Formats: sequence, C-alpha cells, structure tokens
Amino acid sequence: MSVELGRLVSQLNSYLRVSDFKEGAINGLQVAGKKQVKKIAFAVDGVLETIEKAVAEDADVLIVHHGIYWGFQYPLRGADYKRVKLLMDHEMALYAVHLPLDAHAEVGHNVNLLKGLGVAPESLEPFGDYKGMPIGFAGKFSRALGRDTVTEKLAALLGGPVQLLPFGPDKVRSVACITGQGADFASVREAKMRGIHYYISGEATHPLYHFAQEQGMSVALGGHYRTEVFGLHALREYLGKNYEIETVFIDCPTGM
Amino acid sequence: MSVELGRLVSQLNSYLRVSDFKEGAINGLQVAGKKQVKKIAFAVDGVLETIEKAVAEDADVLIVHHGIYWGFQYPLRGADYKRVKLLMDHEMALYAVHLPLDAHAEVGHNVNLLKGLGVAPESLEPFGDYKGMPIGFAGKFSRALGRDTVTEKLAALLGGPVQLLPFGPDKVRSVACITGQGADFASVREAKMRGIHYYISGEATHPLYHFAQEQGMSVALGGHYRTEVFGLHALREYLGKNYEIETVFIDCPTGM
Amino acid sequence: MSVELGRLVSQLNSYLRVSDFKEGAINGLQVAGKKQVKKIAFAVDGVLETIEKAVAEDADVLIVHHGIYWGFQYPLRGADYKRVKLLMDHEMALYAVHLPLDAHAEVGHNVNLLKGLGVAPESLEPFGDYKGMPIGFAGKFSRALGRDTVTEKLAALLGGPVQLLPFGPDKVRSVACITGQGADFASVREAKMRGIHYYISGEATHPLYHFAQEQGMSVALGGHYRTEVFGLHALREYLGKNYEIETVFIDCPTGM
Amino acid sequence: MSVELGRLVSQLNSYLRVSDFKEGAINGLQVAGKKQVKKIAFAVDGVLETIEKAVAEDADVLIVHHGIYWGFQYPLRGADYKRVKLLMDHEMALYAVHLPLDAHAEVGHNVNLLKGLGVAPESLEPFGDYKGMPIGFAGKFSRALGRDTVTEKLAALLGGPVQLLPFGPDKVRSVACITGQGADFASVREAKMRGIHYYISGEATHPLYHFAQEQGMSVALGGHYRTEVFGLHALREYLGKNYEIETVFIDCPTGM
Amino acid sequence: MSVELGRLVSQLNSYLRVSDFKEGAINGLQVAGKKQVKKIAFAVDGVLETIEKAVAEDADVLIVHHGIYWGFQYPLRGADYKRVKLLMDHEMALYAVHLPLDAHAEVGHNVNLLKGLGVAPESLEPFGDYKGMPIGFAGKFSRALGRDTVTEKLAALLGGPVQLLPFGPDKVRSVACITGQGADFASVREAKMRGIHYYISGEATHPLYHFAQEQGMSVALGGHYRTEVFGLHALREYLGKNYEIETVFIDCPTGM
Amino acid sequence: MSVELGRLVSQLNSYLRVSDFKEGAINGLQVAGKKQVKKIAFAVDGVLETIEKAVAEDADVLIVHHGIYWGFQYPLRGADYKRVKLLMDHEMALYAVHLPLDAHAEVGHNVNLLKGLGVAPESLEPFGDYKGMPIGFAGKFSRALGRDTVTEKLAALLGGPVQLLPFGPDKVRSVACITGQGADFASVREAKMRGIHYYISGEATHPLYHFAQEQGMSVALGGHYRTEVFGLHALREYLGKNYEIETVFIDCPTGM
Repeated sequence: MSVELGRLVSQLNSYLRVSDFKEGAINGLQVAGKKQVKKIAFAVDGVLETIEKAVAEDADVLIVHHGIYWGFQYPLRGADYKRVKLLMDHEMALYAVHLPLDAHAEVGHNVNLLKGLGVAPESLEPFGDYKGMPIGFAGKFSRALGRDTVTEKLAALLGGPVQLLPFGPDKVRSVACITGQGADFASVREAKMRGIHYYISGEATHPLYHFAQEQGMSVALGGHYRTEVFGLHALREYLGKNYEIETVFIDCPTGM
Repeated sequence: MSVELGRLVSQLNSYLRVSDFKEGAINGLQVAGKKQVKKIAFAVDGVLETIEKAVAEDADVLIVHHGIYWGFQYPLRGADYKRVKLLMDHEMALYAVHLPLDAHAEVGHNVNLLKGLGVAPESLEPFGDYKGMPIGFAGKFSRALGRDTVTEKLAALLGGPVQLLPFGPDKVRSVACITGQGADFASVREAKMRGIHYYISGEATHPLYHFAQEQGMSVALGGHYRTEVFGLHALREYLGKNYEIETVFIDCPTGM
Repeated sequence: MSVELGRLVSQLNSYLRVSDFKEGAINGLQVAGKKQVKKIAFAVDGVLETIEKAVAEDADVLIVHHGIYWGFQYPLRGADYKRVKLLMDHEMALYAVHLPLDAHAEVGHNVNLLKGLGVAPESLEPFGDYKGMPIGFAGKFSRALGRDTVTEKLAALLGGPVQLLPFGPDKVRSVACITGQGADFASVREAKMRGIHYYISGEATHPLYHFAQEQGMSVALGGHYRTEVFGLHALREYLGKNYEIETVFIDCPTGM
Repeated sequence: MSVELGRLVSQLNSYLRVSDFKEGAINGLQVAGKKQVKKIAFAVDGVLETIEKAVAEDADVLIVHHGIYWGFQYPLRGADYKRVKLLMDHEMALYAVHLPLDAHAEVGHNVNLLKGLGVAPESLEPFGDYKGMPIGFAGKFSRALGRDTVTEKLAALLGGPVQLLPFGPDKVRSVACITGQGADFASVREAKMRGIHYYISGEATHPLYHFAQEQGMSVALGGHYRTEVFGLHALREYLGKNYEIETVFIDCPTGM
Repeated sequence: MSVELGRLVSQLNSYLRVSDFKEGAINGLQVAGKKQVKKIAFAVDGVLETIEKAVAEDADVLIVHHGIYWGFQYPLRGADYKRVKLLMDHEMALYAVHLPLDAHAEVGHNVNLLKGLGVAPESLEPFGDYKGMPIGFAGKFSRALGRDTVTEKLAALLGGPVQLLPFGPDKVRSVACITGQGADFASVREAKMRGIHYYISGEATHPLYHFAQEQGMSVALGGHYRTEVFGLHALREYLGKNYEIETVFIDCPTGM
Repeated sequence: MSVELGRLVSQLNSYLRVSDFKEGAINGLQVAGKKQVKKIAFAVDGVLETIEKAVAEDADVLIVHHGIYWGFQYPLRGADYKRVKLLMDHEMALYAVHLPLDAHAEVGHNVNLLKGLGVAPESLEPFGDYKGMPIGFAGKFSRALGRDTVTEKLAALLGGPVQLLPFGPDKVRSVACITGQGADFASVREAKMRGIHYYISGEATHPLYHFAQEQGMSVALGGHYRTEVFGLHALREYLGKNYEIETVFIDCPTGM
C-alpha cells in the first residue's frame, strides 16, 4: 500500500489545521521527497540521529515535532548540510508540525498525555495561549487524587522521573498541561486564575521555582522529550488507520 | 561598624560597572532602605523566601543576583506586594546585580567557578556576548584532564549532580563557562570556534542536546542556582574586607 | 458598613470597562491593601500629597485618575519609595482609572462636564479617538449661545479662569470635550469635520494656537486638574449609593 | 545690499550646525524662493499670520523656529495650501531651524535667555539631551539671589507673567533652561542631579507639578512663545552684522 | 458646464473607494485648486512635464495615477518646488489615485487591459494582494489561444513591444494582470497556484527571470507606462459621462 | 592542481571583505561541498540553469553574485529543492558574494566596468551608499567625451543595447556606476550633488524616468545581467592566478 506525497501533505495540513498557527517554525513539508510514500517514520526531533535511523528503517517520510526551520535562514554547512544531504540522498521527505501538534484536540500531545493520566475526556478544555491560539489543555479527574498519587501516575505514564515543585494543594482534581517548554509565568498565572491544582509541563527554568512557590501552584516537569512523544504516537495511529501504510516510531530520548 | 546606604550603593555601582550593561533588569538599588547599614545579606534570588530569612537575620540590605525588576511594570498585588511590603516594613534595601555579576573579572560567577575548578587564573579570558558585552569566561587547565575527571571535580565544587552532554573530546584542556541560563546555540557555537573542549553552564533546554551532539561539544549543566552562588560569595568577601561590616549568605537552593 | 476590597475592585473593573482600553497606564488595582474597605478617598493624582491627606482621612482605598504606573518600570527610591511606603504602612489600596474614566458614559469626566455646562444629555455622543476607542464626548445646547456666554459658564462651572483661543463662530450650539491634555491636532480636526463650534479641554501646548486659528476653531482650556475632577465626583457619588460606605474627595489643585 | 539665497542657506546650515541634529522636523530651507535676498524676516512660528506679515514687510526670506515640516507628509489643502501659496506667490523662501537654535552656543534661545537673566557667561554649560545632543544650557549667578528675585527678573526679561512651581530652595545660585516645551521629567531629574536650584522653561503639562514638588525643584514657566524669541533676535543681529542686509522681527505672541 | 471641486473630489473618493486602501501614497486631493472645475486633465504621472502640458490645456484639475506624496515629507526645493508652484500659479488641483485605480472593477487598469485583450468579462476575478487588498485581476479567454498570439494581441493593444519570459504552456486560456511594477515573486507564485497560463505586468527586475523559468510561468512585460494608461482613459470616460465636462488625456510615455 | 575548500572559502571571505557588509543575503559559503576543489565555475545567478551547466562542466565550486539566501527561510520544495539537490548530488559547493562584489576595489563590478569604459583608474572613488558602505564607484575620463560617444562605448563594452535617459549635459567628463538594480533616487541625487555628468546602472523602474529628467541627469541602463558579469570575470582571473586551478564562466544572460 502507498500514498502520494502531495496527497498526504495536503491531508495532514488540513487535519492538523497547520494554517491556523502563526509561529517562526515552518509547519508542513519542510523538505520534499519521493512521490510515492510506502513507509512513514515519526520522531520528536528532526536531527541527524533520527534521520539516520529513519534511513535505516527505509522510511519515505519523516514526520517530526521539531523540524529544521525556526524562523531564520542559515547556510547549508556542517550538521545543517548533513541533515539535508541525508534526506535528499534517500529522497526522504521531512514533514514538521510544531504548535499545531501541541494544540490538536485528537492527536495533540496535551490531550493524549492528559487522557493517559486518567483525566476525564469530556472535561478537557483548551488552555494557554500562543499569539491568540490555545496550545495546551486542562481537565478534571472524576474524583480528587492525592498530589503524590498524581505524580506517581505521571512518572509511570512517562516512563521516567518527574521533578515536582510541590506548592499547590494536597488534593488534585483539576490539572492543566502544556508539554515541552510550556512552563512559563503566563501559564502558571492562568492555571492559578482557572483554579487548576496541578500544572504539567516538560521543562522549566530556574525563575519558575519561586514563581510557582509564591503563586502556590504545583508544577510537575516530566521532561521535554518524554512529554512530547504523545502526539507523534497518536498521529502515527491515525495515519496507520487511514492509509494502511507502514509506520515506525523512532525513539531518541535526550533526558531533557 | 556601619556604612551609609548611599555610599555603599555608589561604590557598588562603580565597582561592579553597573552602567556598562544594557539589559531589561534594573541593576543597582531596586528598593531603598534605612540610612545606616550594619549588616548585609546575600542571596541568589530576591524572593519572599529569601527576604523573610534576611529579615530573620536582621539585615539592612539584601544583595541579590535576581532582583524584582526585569524590564516591565507590574502592579503591587499578591506576592509582588508581599515582597515589597516586607522590605519596607523592615526598611531593608534591595540591591540587585545581574549581568554585571556574571561578567565581573574579580567577583563574577564565572571567574570564581572556573578558578574553583582549577583553571589557571592567568589563562582566563572573556567569553560569550550579551548585546556587545562578554558575560562569561574561558580558560585552560595547566594540563589536559579526562572529561570524566572534570565532571567529577565540577560536581564536587558545586556540591550536587552535573548533567553532562558528553559530545566533546575525551581530554579537556580548555573550558568556558556562562553560569545560570547560559547554554544557548550562540555560546556553544562560539565555544566550538574557539577550540573549547568543555562548556559549563547552569541549565539548558531540550534543543541544545542535539545541537551539542551535532557540534561535538561537551556541555556540563550544574544547575542554575548552584552555578550562581559564586559571585555572591565573592562579593560578600570583598565587602566584608572593605567595610568590616557583618554579612550573611542566605542559601535557598531550587534544585533547578 | 464595609465592602471587601476584592469585590470592590472586580465591580469597579467591570463597571468602568477597564479591559476595553489599551494604554501604557495600568487601570485597576495598582497597590493592594487591607481586606475590608470602610472608607474610600478620591483624588485626581496619586501622589505623595494626596496619599498623605488620604491617610489623614483614614481611608482604606484611594481611587485616582492618575496612578503610579504609566508603562515602564522604575526602582522604588526617593518619592517613588515614599508613595508606596505610605500606602503600605497604612495598608491603603491604590486603584487607578485613567482613559476609562475619560470615556465613561455615566461617571466619565467629559459627560459630566458637558452636562454641568448645560449641554442636552440626549444629544451626547462619543468623540475623539485613542487607539480605536473614543475617550471624549460631543453634544449640543438646546439653543445657540454666545461664545462669551459659554466661556463664562465654563469658568463658573470649573471655578477658575478659562483661556480661550477665540477662533470659531460667535454663536455656539455644538461643543465637544476631552478633558486633561486632550487638545491635540487630531481632536481639533475631528471637531472641525463634525461641525463643532467650541472645543473644551484642560490644557494645550503652543502649536495648537495657530492650528486652532487656521482651522477656525474656538478652543477653551480650563486646566488639566479642574477639568478632571468631574469623573471622580461622579464615581464617588455612584459608589456612595451602591455601597453605603464613607467617601471623601481630596482636593489638591495644581493650577495647571 | 543683497545676498544670494543659496549662499545664505549654506552659511546658515553650517553656522547653525544643522546636520548635527536628528529630529522629525526639517532643519534648513523648507520652501525655496527668489534668488537674491534683500530683506529677511524672523518669526517664532511659520504660520499664515506671520507669512502675511512678512509679505507686508516685503521680505524675501522668512526664518522661523517652527517650520511647516515635522516628520510626516500631508496634502496641500486648507491652511496648509494657503501657507505655501502665499510663500510661492511672493517667491518668499522659508528657512526653519528648530533644535539647532535651542542648542546654539552663540545665537541659541537658552544661552541668550540665561545671559539676559544675568547668569555669568563663563559659567554656561550644555544641559539636557535630545537623542544624544544637549539642547539647553545651565549656569550660575555670580552670587545667590532670592528665588522671588529671580522670578521677578525673569518676568521682566520676558515681558510677561511667569508661573512658578516653587518647590526648590529659597536661595538660587545655579539655573538651567530649555526653552519652549522643555520641562519634562528627564530635564527636572537632570537638574536635580546636577544641583540646579531653579529650572526655566516655556510650558509644562500637569504631571510636572507633582514631579517638581516631589523632587524639590523650582520650575519657572515663562511661556513657550516668549522664551523662544531670544534665538531669533540673536540670529537677526548676527545676520545683520554679517550681510548688511535689511531685517525685521515679526512678533505674533500666542499667550502660550 | 462645470462642477465644484469639493463635490468632484468627494464623489471620486467614494466611487474609487479611496479609503479602502492602506499605502504610503496619499490617495485623493493632493493639492487644492480653484473652486469651479471646467476642464479635467488626466495623466499617468504627476510631474513637471505633465503639469506644464495640463497648464497649456488650461485644465483646472489634473488627475494622475502617480502623485507627489509617497509616504514621506520633503522640502519644496528644485523640481519639487516647481511642480507645486506651477500648480498653485494656475490654481490647478492635483488629484492622485494609485492602488485604488489598479484595483477598481470598472475603471481600473487591470480590468480594462484584460477586456481590451479579449478576456471574457464574466470570467474576471480579483487577483494579487497588497496588505490584504487585491489589486489585480485574472480571467479567461473563451477558448485557448497560442502563447504567441496572446503576445501579439497584447503588443497591438499596448501599441508597443512586449518582453516575454516564455516559460509557461504554449496554449493560453487563463491570464492574470497587475499593471505597472506588479511582477514580483508573490504574484507569479499566486498565478502558478491558481493555474494561470500567462501573467501580464508592466515591468520586472532581473531576479524574476529565473523565478519565472523555475516556476514555469510565462510573464509578459508591456511597460509600466503603457500598461497604466487604461485606468485613466476609463476614468476620463466615466467622468465625461457623469459631468458633461471637458476632459483631456496628456500622453507622456517614458519607454519604461 | 587543487585547493582545499575550507582554505579557498576563508581566503575569499577575507579578500572580498565579506564581513564588512550587512545585508539580507548570506555572503560566503551558502552550500558546502567536496573537500578538494579542482575546478571553479562562475555565474551571475545561482539558479537551476547555471547549476546544471556547472555540473556539466564538472565544477567543484560554483561562485555566484546572486545566491540562494536573501534574508528569509523557505522550505526545500519545487525548484528550491532541485537546486540544492543538484548541488548535493554532485557535492558541488555554492559560494555567493553580493554587495562585496559590487563594492570591491579590485575585482568589483563597478571598477571593472568603469575601467573597461576608459575611465582613468587613478580618478576612481567610492560612490553610493548601502547602510553605511559605498557599493559603487565614480571617476573621470581624461578628457570630456560626447554623451552619445559614451553611450556607444558602453554598448560596445556590454555587448548589447543601452537605454539612455538623456537628461544630462552633452559633454561627459565624470561618470558614476552602480551595476545591477542600482538606479534609485538616492544614487541619482548623489550623482547630481557630486557633479557627475552620466550615471550608469543595469536597470531602473519607471519612476526614475521623470526623476532623472527633473534632476537633469543622464542615466544609462545597460541591463542587470550584462553589467554584473564584470566582477565575476575579474574574480575568476584573480583566482586563476592565485591557485593555478581550472576555471570556467557560465554565461546565462536574461535580457534584463
């Protein structure tokens, strides 16, 4: 079974609502490839390491959350050269979807992480803001859980350690999540104003510690990488169903 | 023994070269206080927790690396209100010094961390750039050390774990350092161009992992907080000598 | 009788439509205060002189047209320190409402000044523009008055001298008003285009003289301070009615 | 006696250091005119009223402090049309010099006002800043005078009333001046830091009242127009001497 | 027969939808003139040469596509002085209409050029974009023509040579046009995406050659001047019908 | 004979003073290539057509005046993909030098065009400005020539037609040149002020016609392409001498 690259790209662009988001990154086809797609690889990062593995898997398209265009030009030298050369040598296309994959209501990182954690699906609502678009989600457990219980469930879901800034209430009913680098002052302030008990993200920087403390908000940091595999797994499942095509997930955790 | 606040502030401003740096943060006296200063407290962060401890220590001035003005106005409500109220209730002044304390050649974070690590003092040279001013330092060991040896020494110096992105050479002679949140693409690229073998900072975000990997640079992350106590200890010692005044360091580690 | 500060603030924010206006100044609660409000003071300017008088009046909240945040940060030193310290020492809250008080259709400066002058209330219409929001009002007398008559009535209403740039028609039926520093070229041009005979503001600068002359528009300048007490009196009356709470107006004219 | 317009303009541009100043206004020849110049008129404002009087005086060039170009384009309609048409009908050139006439060390407004007030000429130093260029002057009386004495002398010099914000010391030795609309926070702050006792300008707006009060600075406002005739009188004298040409000053006070 | 200038201007502004377009150029009356208009001249460019000819024709208004205000101020010297002086000496008004005349559905350059070329009027649709407004048109021939046939018809219509970048299909059914300097990358890309076979403009610069080649688009360049007479002829006809007033077209081709 | 790519690039960067120019385009190595360079191709434009010919010539580096990076990012699709793929498939490097090749005093377009025209080499001086750097040259013939003679010589030198805007003096002694798209208002104005008789560029747009006419300046337009081969021929000769390496010039004229 195979699908034409042009058709795949235009259906992905439409399904992921790629044109709704304004950001520096290019969302969509970043590097063209061969016409017929038989196998799609998925990875968090579009870097040498994952491209090499996708080549080894004989994939025709690599779909990533972090692509190679972030708002500015650069010459094709060094690793930048090698990435593109490897793609071109194998006519492997690179498709990137950044904020639209945070925000998506079906295959997004945030909805799928929260569902995996046991949040009631019907309680899920958009959360956060990037230039006018929500990119996260908030929801409720069907009953309040202990804060440590939530943290343990999260660690189990992510398959790795969670750093908790433990400044919110002991009992957790409502949670919000923006995966990756989503733990900034604005998000914690919005969480506070919306009565969230427990805010989940991937990573944060030092100033957030005291801000969370002074706001009285629990912030759980599960790792940028580990919180951003959810959307790729979900998108893989979605495309697998729709195209009956071969797919593979390439796992390159960074520990960050 | 005591010193007049006005005199202390103007000597600090001059010694730390506060007016040489253009940044959003206000460097210098952020909140006024009582006229005579008998005791000075030092802390990395100017937050409720450290202000409360400085009050308990009966300090007249609190000198911090991270103050309360970062380039924009905000109303005095919630924790922002409490911080200022606590300071004013005890007429405790708040003096903040951000980039000038990264960059300082005598009491700066970077020079003191590198010296503590065993880098040859005469080899130290400015490194990095913030709007035209270098804010870090680079230097050389008197002889090459194993990469793991350097990492162990760093962990011992910092008194805590170091996360190493181990992509540079096994033997380390030249190192560079920008403490805190100083591990960005530009710094790693500069390190590469200047032949640095091992780059030290406090914290980094996920995209740096693959960038360091593709550049072939070792990046050691010792924690934002733990890498930024050096300048405050050094400044405390400097002021202690000059004013024969009581001083205290307030330790509130964040684990970040 | 008393009202909770949080409730007072959120009702004021809503009644005054504080979030409809984009400006540098912070509209709303600028400095927090004690929880229960028994007495509210009103003043044009939130400055040392008025804060001292509000303290003498034992007020719990000071509501002003000109607050202490105008779009940029500043350190708390000198008079800036004293203002905040005085407020905090007495746990007196500071609430500021700038453009929303110019523009308000019930308690605004402009509608109340024009009504006081005898303009027919049913003729009042929004006038002027600040980033897409009208901030003044225009209206009609029920019959035309002599220009000097209008000026005399205005002086009587304001309780002080009026400087008239007497370049419009002798008979005045339609007037427009933007209090304070509202006499710029754009307003005079709009007045001209809308057939206004007499434009009222608080103060103007030199270039307006010849502009008014060349446009053939009468401009009456009644003083920044004296034209901007109207909204505060009206708001005081409104809150007095709604909360049965003690109120006081603090008069500190500047002669400007 | 006559002078060629081209030669006059290029000598004025050079003498007044027109190219040293970056501002919205065009400094130099704003509207061309007839080749030979026999009579020059001087006025504060380049407006219909002064152009008409210059025509009545049969002047060939009108030199003004406030010209007709302030940084943006506008169509030639209404009064804007009439001004240019009147100039062109009489082939009268319009030469404008704005900030360079504030700042000039010989024929500037500020030096000549301060000398007229009795400030010791050898004590005069640049004061104030506009985008990196000083535009005012500061100086000292040979001995301290009473504040009211200075105000009376200023009123006599200007030939009109002076509004005094009387918040500085009773005895005045050092004064600073930026004529016209030169009384802003930055100038008063600089005056305070340089130990000035008495600051002179033309006009100010309401917020300056409390700022001057809180800074403890006396601010004397003598009128925008009346403080800005000095440079034109001085330039007239200078040109009269250099070219033996007929000159006339056109007085159109605005009371502002 | 005559028409009042004010009425003519306001009807033109409305008919041409002048206020719908945001651009640097002033659209509308750029220079005022005598009250009664008996004769209107039309020209592509509002320059000395055309103003002189309009004077010779004794016109009261000159309507142009390219006026004298393009977004910035300039002093009235040299040719800039002469243009305005000539207009004012004869009280001839200057009315300019730039983008609104490209975009107009009845009297616009593009619709009239395309109709002249034989494109089916009912097929015409807006094309191109300038800050959110379409300024060109696209349409279809009733049957496909040979590319050379289209080029010959275009040359005949324009009365001069056409430079063809012959990179599109041999058979042409659909064409698009933005006259003047309308051949940029965005327009060619839009043409490609909309299935256009042949794109017409006035002039292009060198980089377009290879872009057109690589996109496979035929681009026909008929001259900036020659493609922009169409709207003026159509507007002349429209005004002639509506006002029964004398009109004249002033032809000053530039060969560009 | 061969040269290492790294050494070639760093010597070119230094010789061409690539880092002195701030522009959107990337000057220097835009796409990496094989390590050893045996043959260098030169072309005006780095486009599919020239890359294909360089491949046919078996070149290892293609040096162009117009590269593929102009200040913004774009995805690698369509022709953008093909260009890079062709380069990478043959490991051919792409080196681009834009403004530095206009401005260069030895191998620049402008000096070499002017020398070819017979201008006295010792009279050559920098001309024009791009963000603070001159990018053209001006010079003098040893004696005045007729304007038509100069135009004929230019046409002969360029090997193609020259469009002359014939508005300057009949006798030409001093000429200036900015090749390519260098004929804007600022350049013509500078030429006028510096007493130039004849200004040479590659192409201009319609508004320049009347501007040149009103300024009284002759402007000769010899084609963007044809005026920008000079620097590439000169650079080819320079490199041929220095490296004894094979070189080839790839001629793809655009007629523009």
